[in-house]
Amino acid sequence: MMNSVKVIAPATVANVSCGFDILGFAVDHPGDVVIMTLKDSPGVTISDIVGDGGRLPRESAKNTASVAVNAFLESLGSKQGVDIVLHKNLPLGSGMGSSAASAVAALVGINHLMGNIKSRAEMVPFAMEAERIACGSAHADNVAPSLLGGFVLVRDYNPLDVIKIASPEHLYCTLVHPQIEVKTEDSRRVLKTVIPLKDALTQAGNVAGLVTGLMTSDYDLIKRCIKDVIAEPVRSVFIPGYDEIKATALAAGALGCGISGSGPTMYALSSERGLAEKIGEAMQLGFLKYHLKSEAYVSKVNQEGARIIS
Amino acid sequence: MMNSVKVIAPATVANVSCGFDILGFAVDHPGDVVIMTLKDSPGVTISDIVGDGGRLPRESAKNTASVAVNAFLESLGSKQGVDIVLHKNLPLGSGMGSSAASAVAALVGINHLMGNIKSRAEMVPFAMEAERIACGSAHADNVAPSLLGGFVLVRDYNPLDVIKIASPEHLYCTLVHPQIEVKTEDSRRVLKTVIPLKDALTQAGNVAGLVTGLMTSDYDLIKRCIKDVIAEPVRSVFIPGYDEIKATALAAGALGCGISGSGPTMYALSSERGLAEKIGEAMQLGFLKYHLKSEAYVSKVNQEGARIIS
Repeated sequence: MMNSVKVIAPATVANVSCGFDILGFAVDHPGDVVIMTLKDSPGVTISDIVGDGGRLPRESAKNTASVAVNAFLESLGSKQGVDIVLHKNLPLGSGMGSSAASAVAALVGINHLMGNIKSRAEMVPFAMEAERIACGSAHADNVAPSLLGGFVLVRDYNPLDVIKIASPEHLYCTLVHPQIEVKTEDSRRVLKTVIPLKDALTQAGNVAGLVTGLMTSDYDLIKRCIKDVIAEPVRSVFIPGYDEIKATALAAGALGCGISGSGPTMYALSSERGLAEKIGEAMQLGFLKYHLKSEAYVSKVNQEGARIIS
Repeated sequence: MMNSVKVIAPATVANVSCGFDILGFAVDHPGDVVIMTLKDSPGVTISDIVGDGGRLPRESAKNTASVAVNAFLESLGSKQGVDIVLHKNLPLGSGMGSSAASAVAALVGINHLMGNIKSRAEMVPFAMEAERIACGSAHADNVAPSLLGGFVLVRDYNPLDVIKIASPEHLYCTLVHPQIEVKTEDSRRVLKTVIPLKDALTQAGNVAGLVTGLMTSDYDLIKRCIKDVIAEPVRSVFIPGYDEIKATALAAGALGCGISGSGPTMYALSSERGLAEKIGEAMQLGFLKYHLKSEAYVSKVNQEGARIIS
């Protein structure tokens, strides 16, 4: 019997501009890695976390990986014990879906060890439970793309309705994570609770167009639609040089650029790897003008979601 | 040289529930018919209108058909004269895109007579000029589907960006037009100019999902998405028995049901012609309970837009 598995789950971009609060996608790199080993005794344990600088909780009831696995096992009525070693490759609090990636990697791992009894879509609710622990709200716009890959529309929560959206084979994402912290409560606080009808219609037209452009590989349409009149205007103030750096990314050939999650990471999409790298360099230079160091990650939009390494 | 042409342009449903203000589609039936004949003398004339009960203007500067043709010829710098006979098959002020259909039929006719120098998409702005005369605003959500066929997303006006959305081969529309009048100014007045962010996100998720469902022929997804939290709640009050009649349509098998344009016509979509007819009968019975006679029209969603008859 196989009793150990190694899984990688990808970083994700939620709040994709016009897709604020409803659209996310997965990237190939970076990803969180878990090594999970079945135990003879019951209980989910975390024996080691590498790469978090000691910042993540080791307790089973507080870490997103173990919370997700516990929710999964409880749904089966199983007392199976399992140990988790987590290699934390995603920066914490970056807006790249860090908590989601750990939870998803652990879920895909336990599902594999238990004989692949659940589909990827069926695992979304367990990953959402982990998000509730990590962020205080059980949102799905990071966990769903990390599980399913590609672009995912979170249409509704009651009941949950996540829809995978086909996207072009050649679509690259640049993520640039500046060394600043944006507090989740700040990024929530600045959102307006009522908005002009006109803005709502603009946003709806753009997200419908973006989905159409993705499904038909119409890069020009994708480019016309990547706009955000709701969240970006109020949230971008937390990112020094935002407008200038975004303009730099677009000038360097990005199809679109925006805030990843609730920031501070910025994402840019492009149609070629070379462009995506050039865009990353331009954005990092942009942040340096504001005396901010940053990490850049360039990869394809991931189409398969988390995957078993061994 | 061909100097006469007969064209039919289809009725359209704008404000398709979650696609309020941004999504419209064309139906096969009914349609307005024009017969256009080139003249030796300059000027666009309307020699006859049949079926409007004398309610439409015959003056060239006021009728949507001639206004559209004038805008078209002016753009070419042409002094070509043409006469229009209009067979008005669409009820006026019904929410079925009546003014748009006449303008589109006439545009497709003049374009044909002039040697098909413009694409369908290029004619949208001329048809919008006619809408400005008829409704006071140059909207595109009726004229674009009447010209292009199928479902059309009007993403932006500045510059104009209309995107045809692929839809299932088997998709039928029931239109039920009750004998009441809804004043355009009333249906505009009741719209809120600011709305809760929550509603904006619900609407955006549904329209993105609807577009996805249409493009992938996913009837169940289409069904889940045909909802409107913005316009329907305030506009349906003008249609007696609205909630009950909508529930009747859904119970009879409709994928979705809503207000066509700004009403009073109600539309319902379904996957089979037999269902669409049954839905029409149920809705008409529903209106009768409120002492309202109605006309029902059942046809396929039209995929080609206006067409040359002879």
